[in-house]
Amino acid sequence: MTESASDTDEAPASEPGGAPIDFYFDFSSPYGYLAAHKIDSIARLYGRAMNWRPILLGVIFKTTGAVPLLDVPIKGAYARRDMERTARFLGMPLVFPQVMPFPSIAAARAVYWVQDRDPQQARDLCLALYDRAFARGGDIREPAAVLECAAEVGIDADELAAALQDPAVKERLKSENEAAMAAGVCGSPFFVVDGEPFWGADRLDHVERWLATGGW
Amino acid sequence: MTESASDTDEAPASEPGGAPIDFYFDFSSPYGYLAAHKIDSIARLYGRAMNWRPILLGVIFKTTGAVPLLDVPIKGAYARRDMERTARFLGMPLVFPQVMPFPSIAAARAVYWVQDRDPQQARDLCLALYDRAFARGGDIREPAAVLECAAEVGIDADELAAALQDPAVKERLKSENEAAMAAGVCGSPFFVVDGEPFWGADRLDHVERWLATGGW
Repeated sequence: MTESASDTDEAPASEPGGAPIDFYFDFSSPYGYLAAHKIDSIARLYGRAMNWRPILLGVIFKTTGAVPLLDVPIKGAYARRDMERTARFLGMPLVFPQVMPFPSIAAARAVYWVQDRDPQQARDLCLALYDRAFARGGDIREPAAVLECAAEVGIDADELAAALQDPAVKERLKSENEAAMAAGVCGSPFFVVDGEPFWGADRLDHVERWLATGGW
Repeated sequence: MTESASDTDEAPASEPGGAPIDFYFDFSSPYGYLAAHKIDSIARLYGRAMNWRPILLGVIFKTTGAVPLLDVPIKGAYARRDMERTARFLGMPLVFPQVMPFPSIAAARAVYWVQDRDPQQARDLCLALYDRAFARGGDIREPAAVLECAAEVGIDADELAAALQDPAVKERLKSENEAAMAAGVCGSPFFVVDGEPFWGADRLDHVERWLATGGW
């Protein structure tokens, strides 16, 4: 072993500067909200950037034949209870909005438009939207609500309002949704770390160990 | 406070001698196999007895409208990968049997018959069946295979063979399955601890904390 031997050849996958974590989620997904705060902090701990990738589960469910979890007999009632218990387990507030699931198309379009300009602001917007919907049980269906959240985190609401009408922005969400399906995304939240897919807020333990060990 | 005041009024739910844990599972469920060993050891740690309650997911899915996980587009491929990764995460062997999901009716009937005679032997039989199916990728569909597993754990195979033909034993499984549905069981594995339902091998952390704290 000489001084010139590189000691970075076997750097762990979790080395700062590793590939970004892809985080797919529907703004209408309570488990997505619960996971969003945790993955944000895990990514920070392991020095990973994050791609916040809102999707529309309704479109994906047409392919997988799934129906919204809360609408499934027996399972729906259990899921609501599990969401509330999981929130308490994680020490997070959870207040269900009146309509669930709800259309999240305006929120998702906004995020992609912001992301191309300022990824950090896109992250702030995602958390602001999620917190309004599920930490406080608010309504984020309409563009007006999305613009309010955007203004809270310093985004120009007028510019964003115009962008939400832009066919290119609409097309962008459509192609992102198709890309998510092509990547095998089948629910929310869904993470991809160095090519490895993880589905569910209950897989954050796997994500964390994957980042710590580079896989197993 | 006098000496005669009972000091058991506020005994923690996890006190040895607390109510048994209901463990519902389909022998055809890989996540059920992964959970079986863990819940057995968790119950022991917290001094709880266990009710091993095999069910037939196929019957329950007729009510919930669910289809076998591995058959769902996109989700099925992910699930197989997740099962294998979860097994490695838990440090357990996992070899898929050739046919999945498979009919587990003979195995389930056998367990209830044994349980009424010797609960400890029923537990041993459950683990023997699961290990044959998923630790070694064996076939436990036919009565002959179930009888082999039974013999391994000291059960009289001839007596059991006769029991498997007994209409009362068949009826018993049917009514157990109906009771499971009435209790809200919607998948495998499914646990009920002091009235609280937990679904999934990935809820064992919740089960464990529930036993430790009496709920939250």
